[in-house]
Amino acid sequence: MDNQAFRTTKEGTQHAHVDLNSDIAESFGRYTLGLDEQIIPLVSSVNIACGMHAGDPCVMRKTVRRAKEAGVAIGAHPGYPDLQGFGRRDLNLSSDEVYAFVLYQIGALDAFCKAEHTMLHHVKPHGQLYNRAAKDKSCAQAIVAAIKDYNPTLTLVGLSGSLLCSCAVEAGLPCAHEFFADRNYTDEGTLVPRSDKRAVITDAQYATERCIRAIQTGYLQSVSGAPVHVRIDTICTHGDTKQAVEFVASLRTALTAAGIAIRAC
Amino acid sequence: MDNQAFRTTKEGTQHAHVDLNSDIAESFGRYTLGLDEQIIPLVSSVNIACGMHAGDPCVMRKTVRRAKEAGVAIGAHPGYPDLQGFGRRDLNLSSDEVYAFVLYQIGALDAFCKAEHTMLHHVKPHGQLYNRAAKDKSCAQAIVAAIKDYNPTLTLVGLSGSLLCSCAVEAGLPCAHEFFADRNYTDEGTLVPRSDKRAVITDAQYATERCIRAIQTGYLQSVSGAPVHVRIDTICTHGDTKQAVEFVASLRTALTAAGIAIRAC
Amino acid sequence: MDNQAFRTTKEGTQHAHVDLNSDIAESFGRYTLGLDEQIIPLVSSVNIACGMHAGDPCVMRKTVRRAKEAGVAIGAHPGYPDLQGFGRRDLNLSSDEVYAFVLYQIGALDAFCKAEHTMLHHVKPHGQLYNRAAKDKSCAQAIVAAIKDYNPTLTLVGLSGSLLCSCAVEAGLPCAHEFFADRNYTDEGTLVPRSDKRAVITDAQYATERCIRAIQTGYLQSVSGAPVHVRIDTICTHGDTKQAVEFVASLRTALTAAGIAIRAC
Amino acid sequence: MDNQAFRTTKEGTQHAHVDLNSDIAESFGRYTLGLDEQIIPLVSSVNIACGMHAGDPCVMRKTVRRAKEAGVAIGAHPGYPDLQGFGRRDLNLSSDEVYAFVLYQIGALDAFCKAEHTMLHHVKPHGQLYNRAAKDKSCAQAIVAAIKDYNPTLTLVGLSGSLLCSCAVEAGLPCAHEFFADRNYTDEGTLVPRSDKRAVITDAQYATERCIRAIQTGYLQSVSGAPVHVRIDTICTHGDTKQAVEFVASLRTALTAAGIAIRAC
Repeated sequence: MDNQAFRTTKEGTQHAHVDLNSDIAESFGRYTLGLDEQIIPLVSSVNIACGMHAGDPCVMRKTVRRAKEAGVAIGAHPGYPDLQGFGRRDLNLSSDEVYAFVLYQIGALDAFCKAEHTMLHHVKPHGQLYNRAAKDKSCAQAIVAAIKDYNPTLTLVGLSGSLLCSCAVEAGLPCAHEFFADRNYTDEGTLVPRSDKRAVITDAQYATERCIRAIQTGYLQSVSGAPVHVRIDTICTHGDTKQAVEFVASLRTALTAAGIAIRAC
Repeated sequence: MDNQAFRTTKEGTQHAHVDLNSDIAESFGRYTLGLDEQIIPLVSSVNIACGMHAGDPCVMRKTVRRAKEAGVAIGAHPGYPDLQGFGRRDLNLSSDEVYAFVLYQIGALDAFCKAEHTMLHHVKPHGQLYNRAAKDKSCAQAIVAAIKDYNPTLTLVGLSGSLLCSCAVEAGLPCAHEFFADRNYTDEGTLVPRSDKRAVITDAQYATERCIRAIQTGYLQSVSGAPVHVRIDTICTHGDTKQAVEFVASLRTALTAAGIAIRAC
Repeated sequence: MDNQAFRTTKEGTQHAHVDLNSDIAESFGRYTLGLDEQIIPLVSSVNIACGMHAGDPCVMRKTVRRAKEAGVAIGAHPGYPDLQGFGRRDLNLSSDEVYAFVLYQIGALDAFCKAEHTMLHHVKPHGQLYNRAAKDKSCAQAIVAAIKDYNPTLTLVGLSGSLLCSCAVEAGLPCAHEFFADRNYTDEGTLVPRSDKRAVITDAQYATERCIRAIQTGYLQSVSGAPVHVRIDTICTHGDTKQAVEFVASLRTALTAAGIAIRAC
Repeated sequence: MDNQAFRTTKEGTQHAHVDLNSDIAESFGRYTLGLDEQIIPLVSSVNIACGMHAGDPCVMRKTVRRAKEAGVAIGAHPGYPDLQGFGRRDLNLSSDEVYAFVLYQIGALDAFCKAEHTMLHHVKPHGQLYNRAAKDKSCAQAIVAAIKDYNPTLTLVGLSGSLLCSCAVEAGLPCAHEFFADRNYTDEGTLVPRSDKRAVITDAQYATERCIRAIQTGYLQSVSGAPVHVRIDTICTHGDTKQAVEFVASLRTALTAAGIAIRAC
């Protein structure tokens, strides 16, 4: 059993732990997005947009301060340079471009960490960059190289079981496998694509119970009913609607009740 | 006599030195600007655009490498976020915005320095941000704070004798006073504004001789003929045209012939 | 008496009319701004952002359709090319740039009107472009020229009594004088600047009553208590918050009750 | 024989004609691109960038004037909204987005035509939008719909023999088939992709002779040596380098010498 949640102890599940992460700081100029103030106290780590697909320097500064005060782990959330498309369109950048744009954004965010006397902890690619890196080797390697060249102690957060995670491990970079509590998985342990109507789990209670079981056992039921192994170091949560925030609060309560501590990886 | 050129020695002018700096890395995507490859070998320090008024991550990466190989001091050249206006329009950002945008750009450039195992050496604001900071205290203090909060050993490059330089000194930040070899000065030691037709010196030989004399004596002749004190730590040079590059080459030769070493401050 | 509201009749106030306008279509990509669906049915004309300070082509298309269906007059709302600053920073464009950027945006919006088989009716500059044009003659003339060169039957909407309005009239362009129901005016008939704490009227009932009286008499009480003439062809309303929309609804009811018809100028 | 060059006459090749087009107005702010002044007198139609992948309102205005004075046909050259990538990255916009972005750009350019009392003549999509529309039906139809909804008398310029051209014809839109003089063609009449080293023809004389023969006969030799039919209404020319401009001048001379008139379709 290689679940991160169990790596620090040999004594039993009562010491299990998991990270709750959330993408924040997506406001831009006059435009406000996300209930950042409400989601930050509920998670153990945050991924801060770096001004390319969302966010701007003023938002970044304010958010780093807020995250530091809340004591959550601070991560860079680099994306494609496409505000119009919110980083969700595949710009299909070359490896060299991916490397340069990721490195640029990590440095920009880290400047605010330095100015606030805190530490950058991890990097999680955003949107289509994240999706592409999960299966495109040259893209994944470019991201890993950018992080490693900047600071090899930073943790990369990637889709659980993805090529991006393998590339990180291969390069000796700390890696956290990310789980989506509200998504169904295939027999191969990949996400059911959004084009499939079974992609998203809408039953909050089922999603919560499945998530806890998966953390405790390392396995979950695939969309076909088969048991599939999934490594869960961190759970992706959303703070864009009141409903989403409420789900995170209830998930947090349920995890704690199940003896699973919530803390950054 | 407080000229930087003379601070390291009491023995005479033969040990005088000065820095030659140039704004580079202003290309963007498909657009090319500046004869970077030709100007880099002629100067002792470069100011690299950081993607807001000019430049992009790929250009920044390539330029940091090139500057490192050439052994010139690497500086960040942050500007207003206005590619359309090339940072020459006064966006009139608030102090908080100036702070955040400068800090962001310094961090972004420093990321490339780290990845290339070299050091960021200085920061020189660009265009209208530079002009405004020369006389607007809240703007100047915001820039100084951003640099100091990031790394208090970085040198700030500002208009010689400007409010920006005083703010840097007051804050304990290393400061280099910049001189414009091709510009006339008022009796108060400020630049003759470009709206005045005497603003620019077109006689290359006169400009060179005046520059050397000013370095050697600490004084130059103002536009009215009066002697005016000017501190010269670094000279602004241009690499945007063949003619400009040729002037830098000849200035370099003349400085060396006059016993003035060219090196970063 | 030169109030637009009274120009079409000599018989009495029962035929008075005024336009209610609102700035809409300010969403951009993933970012949503403004309660457009709620404000459109309450006004008689809308000003549609054209993709420079806010808005994007998809939002423009959808909004033109919606406005056409609602039967409100459609106007272009050109602004400075500054999404980050929402067109509220003074870019200080040259007259040539103002002309070109306004013309560009008018044409872009009109394309959607053509495709939807409807007509562009007016142009109202946005934010800092509006403010600057109220007192800067070269800026005002550039805007007027752009509109006139495009289509001399379009109505220009400007600050009541402003230089922009005089320039329009001088050039033979139809002009609508805009009144701000929630702002105090000086003895000279200009807006009390926002730096003065008396700038904004927060008492909705007082604002409504003052507005109706001003339409009926052509005069309002300045901030010092003096009577000041103000021409009111159109009233600026806001749709960015629930509260703002409610004020428009109540203003509409009050105007109708006072016998003032609401219709586009 | 359906070649446009021969459609207006039944009397012989001496009345043949072809259009020479060039993409221009690609400068942006401080950035200059293309030898527009040199290429305009050599062609019969121009495609003007509309501020999304290149160009800006000031450049558009100046260029429309210049084109009008030179008497060349003026076309809109809409591209993906991606200045950084010069419209060459596949943003993969939805059909609705393609429609809205194309319509927006046509209207913006036409505004300058109106202000200069000239007429918009055609529309040629740029870069990756052009490539994608050549084979992606929903993309092609969105472009055709945008043009037709704006003005059904505008000519669409597309890759000769492409799906985009068929869609235009089907919709009743005038269509000009574009030929690339410097590119090799497959047996199917499509371009040899740039990944193939035989893609580009570097022998100027061979390119010229092949082009004239193709206009005269309607056929050219494919890369495999087979005869392949190609319809040539307009020839794409380049004005980005001195060498490219010289080729256009020599092509023009050769076409004229061969009795082929150069004029807009």
